[in-house]
Formats: sequence, structure tokens, C-alpha cells
Amino acid sequence: MINALINRPALGNFPPADWAKVLKEGILKVAPKGLNQVFTAMAGSDANETAYKAAFMYRRQKERGGAHVEFTQEEMDSAMKNELVPGSKPLSILSFKTGFHGRLFGSLSTTRSKPIHKLDIPAFDWPQATFPQIKYPLDQHKEENEAAEQKALKEVEDLIVNYHAAPCAVVVEPIQSEGGDNHASPKFFRGLREITKKHGVLMIVDEVQTGVGATGKFWAHEHWGLETPPDIVTFSKKAQTAGYYFGLDELRPNKPYRQFNTWMGDPARALLFKGIIEEIERLDLVKKTAKVGDYLFKGLENLSEKFPGQFENLRGKGMGTFIAFDNPKRDRFLVECKKVGVNIGGSGQSAVRLRPMLIFEEKHADILLEALEKVAGRLV
Amino acid sequence: MINALINRPALGNFPPADWAKVLKEGILKVAPKGLNQVFTAMAGSDANETAYKAAFMYRRQKERGGAHVEFTQEEMDSAMKNELVPGSKPLSILSFKTGFHGRLFGSLSTTRSKPIHKLDIPAFDWPQATFPQIKYPLDQHKEENEAAEQKALKEVEDLIVNYHAAPCAVVVEPIQSEGGDNHASPKFFRGLREITKKHGVLMIVDEVQTGVGATGKFWAHEHWGLETPPDIVTFSKKAQTAGYYFGLDELRPNKPYRQFNTWMGDPARALLFKGIIEEIERLDLVKKTAKVGDYLFKGLENLSEKFPGQFENLRGKGMGTFIAFDNPKRDRFLVECKKVGVNIGGSGQSAVRLRPMLIFEEKHADILLEALEKVAGRLV
Repeated sequence: MINALINRPALGNFPPADWAKVLKEGILKVAPKGLNQVFTAMAGSDANETAYKAAFMYRRQKERGGAHVEFTQEEMDSAMKNELVPGSKPLSILSFKTGFHGRLFGSLSTTRSKPIHKLDIPAFDWPQATFPQIKYPLDQHKEENEAAEQKALKEVEDLIVNYHAAPCAVVVEPIQSEGGDNHASPKFFRGLREITKKHGVLMIVDEVQTGVGATGKFWAHEHWGLETPPDIVTFSKKAQTAGYYFGLDELRPNKPYRQFNTWMGDPARALLFKGIIEEIERLDLVKKTAKVGDYLFKGLENLSEKFPGQFENLRGKGMGTFIAFDNPKRDRFLVECKKVGVNIGGSGQSAVRLRPMLIFEEKHADILLEALEKVAGRLV
Repeated sequence: MINALINRPALGNFPPADWAKVLKEGILKVAPKGLNQVFTAMAGSDANETAYKAAFMYRRQKERGGAHVEFTQEEMDSAMKNELVPGSKPLSILSFKTGFHGRLFGSLSTTRSKPIHKLDIPAFDWPQATFPQIKYPLDQHKEENEAAEQKALKEVEDLIVNYHAAPCAVVVEPIQSEGGDNHASPKFFRGLREITKKHGVLMIVDEVQTGVGATGKFWAHEHWGLETPPDIVTFSKKAQTAGYYFGLDELRPNKPYRQFNTWMGDPARALLFKGIIEEIERLDLVKKTAKVGDYLFKGLENLSEKFPGQFENLRGKGMGTFIAFDNPKRDRFLVECKKVGVNIGGSGQSAVRLRPMLIFEEKHADILLEALEKVAGRLV
């Protein structure tokens, strides 16, 4: 432990003797079902970007005829000039409008939440599909929402088949977080899995914000009941470290130094995640978060009746404490919250999004609800 | 200290109370002359990519007429579609052939060392200039080398003026490390500074490998005697943390969240760099590295006479222990080194590159030279 803190190994070349053990007892212990391998990274952005790189290499490897097929001289020459092999179709990653996947050049090309992140930065000509615009309350908009989701799936399929740069993967957040806490139904995500399978496109689930318990499951995509797991799941934030999980052996790089960097993560932070996992298990925090989330949601439903228009589109029911609502005077609402001692963030255009820690209990929910009631009262 | 290790703050939003102090007494204490500001990052790749982002924003801000000028609706709409404002010239970063700047999508687009890093990964259509191919020994190739450097500078200027995507910055390593320990003269780098100044293009010096003492100066670009400092200097590796230094106030982002990420580095690793700086000062390691480097270089010169052809193009004279040579049977040479207990790496096509730690002394150099002599004897 001390060694991990005061030294920083170049993990790709010189992993410490206990690195495999640290991974097995930490990061890999909570690997999503069906995904038994991990590539460690530094943060959400490079977790996504290395996942994208894996997707590109996987696609080209299939086209070449397998991992054993050598690169041609023409391929190598083209790569050195940042060019495609003449005549080949450009490749891309498909993402969703209002999605967020990071701020480096590749990840930023898939980020579609706000101009402020993207202005002046060159981006790849990659496709974006509409994320279904769900209406609330859900039980009053069943047919509309179902239609919106089917339409979005159709758009995804159209882009996969027809976009001039062939998508090698679709990247999607279980809940679009930075973009405004936008949800879709499990059925939508099952449909997305079907379409990606059908067309040999990888499904990358970006759990950088949603992972590690806050939705009442360890991974948010566990809510979907998928028949086959996603191909790649990326993580960061609450994990205090980062990386991507995968299952297919063909996603392992077929040669050294194709997917590589000096540090490949940080053992000190990987140890921290191991400690966090142990605490989560010891205190049963995922289950508790599911329960306290239900309690908090009910309290917010009450507030939304008491203060019409201030807790609009209340969403995240059954999703632990990953709850949000819209307020037309959102920015003032957040300032007033700070005045009564509550630090809440906004996302998207008008969302107030709740992100309590996993140790958040009903007694804390009561304090929060009381504070929100006070703030709502001031904004009437 | 303990707090930095067991918690991981979101530095951009919630810096710890002592963060400014940690920066002042650590990272900023060794800031290159003329650069008094720093943006912290996670690793060499994102240090370079955030520097590139700063360069793009800087250029567009100048074109707009200053930091106070608001974005137009058209700019925001275009950015959200990964497109340029109609009619505007694409922007780029100019790098050198055989250079290496990282493996994420933006940095990889400027990396030109080997196909293995680049194959199958989409890249931006950015320009590359020839890095002067210096011949050794230097005193026998004065005119040729001078001509090669002038030709390279001319190519840089041509690309700045004529390339279809306008370079906002030139990124260059003081010694191309991964690409084979390729050197150029201080005069070449002074010329590069002049050209970039003349055309309003930023000069980014990538000191990820060369920084922190190994060349006998704290920063390798101190060897050049520049009249004005580079605009940006990036660092990582030996620093155990990463980021970019800059001087111009106009390189500060003009709005929140333009240059941002959740972690913005890691205080635990920034503290480690602070500790390293203190040790370097206490033991005067930079000066000592300059001295032991001279000693080691002399020993290698002797070996190159004794074993003709095995220590070809010996380079790095006066550059501390940042020394390299070519061996036609390089890969076998490195294997034999391991057999006699010495772990040395290769770079480029045929280079054996030495990268001892800063605590490397003459007595260690003797052991190394003896081992290399043994290996060279076996390869005769």
C-alpha cells in the first residue's frame, strides 16, 4: 500500500508483483456480469477513448480476417500520414444528442451536451442519434414515450447502415447525466443491444457517472435485463480510478503497444476503489441506496404537488438516489439551496440533479426535503 | 497529506483549502522561466491535449477580437454538429515526423513515431514537418547538419503558411525520445521560436520525457538560450503528475467549463512531485546529473572506439544522462543486456537509449559501462 502511494509504476511495462491481486480483489470483483477483463485508465475521458480505440481495432481486425493477419505496408504508410488506406470507408463512433462522454478530442467528438465544451475544438465527423425525449409523469405518456423510443432506435439503425463514416460502436449513458438526467426505458436499451448485435457494432455503456451504486444497482445497466451483456462498460468518478470492462477475447490487443500508455492507471487509486468496494459490501450500501432513493422520491412527489411547476418532470423512480427534476428558475433555485446549506448541482438546461453519497440515509433525506421545501417556498 | 491520499477531490469545482499552497511550493516552484501559470492534468497525453485545446481557443479568441467577444449562435450550432462555421478554415496542430506526443485521439494525431501506435485509429488531417536528421559525430558534419536544420525550418514555415488546415501551434520535443532520441541544435529551436513568433503560432514544448533534470538542466529547453520563452511547456513522467505551464494571460480560458474536467490531476501525485523537487534541491541532483552524464558519455566514446559500429551515432553530449546510440543488432543487444543484469530500453528503429534515475552516480556508470562492454564483446 505504502509502495503504491510513494512510487508510481509504469504499469504496462513494470506492474508490481501484487497488481494482479489488487485487480482481482478490487476492480474485477465488481465487474459487470459477462465482462471478465479490464483495461485500466486515468479518468473518464481516457477510459472512453481507449474503449473507442479498442472498438476501432476490433472492427478492422474482423475485416482483416483475424488477429493473426499482419498489417500491410500500405496500411502502415497510410497510418503514418493520418490517412485511411485509399478506398476504405472512414470509421466512427455513434453517440446520442445531449450525451456527455468527456472532453479530450475523441471523447469530445462524442459529447453533445453543450456548446461550451466543444467550441473552437476540432472534432471528428461522427454521427449523432436523437436520445428519446421522455415525458413525465410516465403513466400519462406511455404511448408517446414508446413511440419516441422506437423512433430513436430507428434513427440509430439508419445511421449504422447509412452514415458515410461507419460506426464501429454506439456509446450511451444509462442516464444522460451532464446533459440533464435524461432517462430511457429498459426496453429502449434492450432494443439498442439488439440493433448493435444485428449489425456487428459494439455497445459501449458509459457508466462514468451512473456506476458504483447510486442507482440502486452496482451498475445502472443492471436495470435493463439485457439478454447479452454490453460489449464494453466504462467507469470512473465514484470508483476513484477509471477504465473499461470487456468480455470478448477479440477485444484484447493483438500486439504489444497497440493499446498502451506509460501509467495505465494508478495503483494508489485502484487500491482506494478496492477499499470503497469493501465498505459498500460491509454496509450493504447499494441496497440501502435503493431504499433511501424510494423514500426520497416519495418526498419529492409530495413537494411537486405542493409546489406546482417547481419539481417538474420528476425522474429517477426506482433508480436509487439518482433523481432529478426541472425547475424553470433553476439557477436561482440552486443559489437559494446554497443559502440554506445545501450544495446541489444543475445539469442540462433546467435540471436540478441529486447526487448524494452512498452513505446518505433517510434522516439526511428529511433534512434535504425540508431545505428544498424552504427554497421552493421562496420561489413561489 | 493523508487527506489527499484517501480522498480524491474534484479539483475544478472543489479544490482543497491548501491546493494553491501545494501548487506554489511544488509544481509552480520549478515552472520554466517566463511561464508562471499551470493547468494540471493526469498524464502526458491529456497534458498535451489540453495544451492543444488552449491553443485552438487562443487562436479563435484572437480572430474573434478578444476574450470579451461572445460566441455567435452559428458558432454554437456548428460546434454541436462537430462542424466548422461555414466558410472558416480548419485548424490544426503541426508536429514533426518521428515525434511522439501521446496515444489519445488528438495527441495520437500528432504522434508520428511508429505505425503500431496509429494503425486503425482515426486521426485528424494535421500537418507534419521533417525533423532534421542530424549526423554524427557532430564535428565532422557541421555543414550538412546546419543545412538539414535550415531545410526543416523552411518546411515548418511553408506548412504554417500554406497547409489547408491552419496550424495554431507547433508541438516539439527537445529530444525526440520514443522516436529514437533524435536531437537538434539550440540554433534550430531558436529558429523555430522565431518562425512561430513571426506567424502568431504557439510553440508547445513537450517535455514529458525530457523534463525534470535528466538532461542536466531542470527543463531540457533551457539548453537553447531562447530570447522569449516557449508559449506552453507540457510535463509528466518523472514529475509523477502532469500538466502544462504557460505565461500568456490570454491562454487562460475566458469562460468556466471551457477547459475543465472532474479531476484536473491528482493532489496525491502533485504532493509526490513536491517531495521529488525537494529531494532534487537537497541533493543538487540536476547539477550532479550533468556531471555524471559527461563521465558516462566519455566512457561510451571509449567503447565506441573499441567496438566499431556498435555504439554508432553516440548522442546526448552535454545533455546529462539523456544519452543514446544506435546498434545494428539493437534487439539482441538489449536481450544480452538483460542477461548481464541491466534493463535498458530501445527507441526508434535501432536506438539504445539510456534513462538512468537522477540518483545515478559515477560508480553506477562504471558498472553500466562494464556490462555494456561485456555485451558488445558478445556481439562482435
